[in-house]
Amino acid sequence: MDVYKIIQGHEKDCQEHAAVDVIKVSNRSRSTAVAGAIAGVVREHGRAEVQAIGAGAVNQAVKAVAIARGYLLEDGIEVVSVPFFTDIDIDGQERTAVRLVVEPR
Amino acid sequence: MDVYKIIQGHEKDCQEHAAVDVIKVSNRSRSTAVAGAIAGVVREHGRAEVQAIGAGAVNQAVKAVAIARGYLLEDGIEVVSVPFFTDIDIDGQERTAVRLVVEPR
Repeated sequence: MDVYKIIQGHEKDCQEHAAVDVIKVSNRSRSTAVAGAIAGVVREHGRAEVQAIGAGAVNQAVKAVAIARGYLLEDGIEVVSVPFFTDIDIDGQERTAVRLVVEPR
Repeated sequence: MDVYKIIQGHEKDCQEHAAVDVIKVSNRSRSTAVAGAIAGVVREHGRAEVQAIGAGAVNQAVKAVAIARGYLLEDGIEVVSVPFFTDIDIDGQERTAVRLVVEPR
């Protein structure tokens, strides 16, 4: 069922904009490395999505977006972030993840 | 020195847009309560700023922005978030806070 939800979401993404892999962030992710990934995906695809579960991961994700914003401003791209919740399935347990869409203002 | 920095920042804010109190979030803040505050400030002043120090507080702040986004969409206001770092002084110790500007796209 959750796989189906993911596929549904993915199809919806495909309709709305080019499908882009979600950047998954953990509490052990280096925020500068995640920032580099975000900047790369935004430069190539025009937008990026970052997913984090738990306070430590969300903190790293937000810091990464702040850093990526600086990287992209150097290229003349001013990005903003749109946070939303999404339910995902991890080993049969439903968890609420925070997603941050990063896209030009 | 840090007080001076804060005053400088405040004066800059005043020049750029109407001065708005920063909403300070801790790891014990309820995200729905913070969301209500954000929505109220955005409705009244057109923008809000949220400040958080530490992973737990940043997590609550981001969740609050996601919830406030829903509240404001009901009023036809679509907000985005712009994260940045700011150095603040707490009892003589310099800490890095995360600020989230919440404003219409």
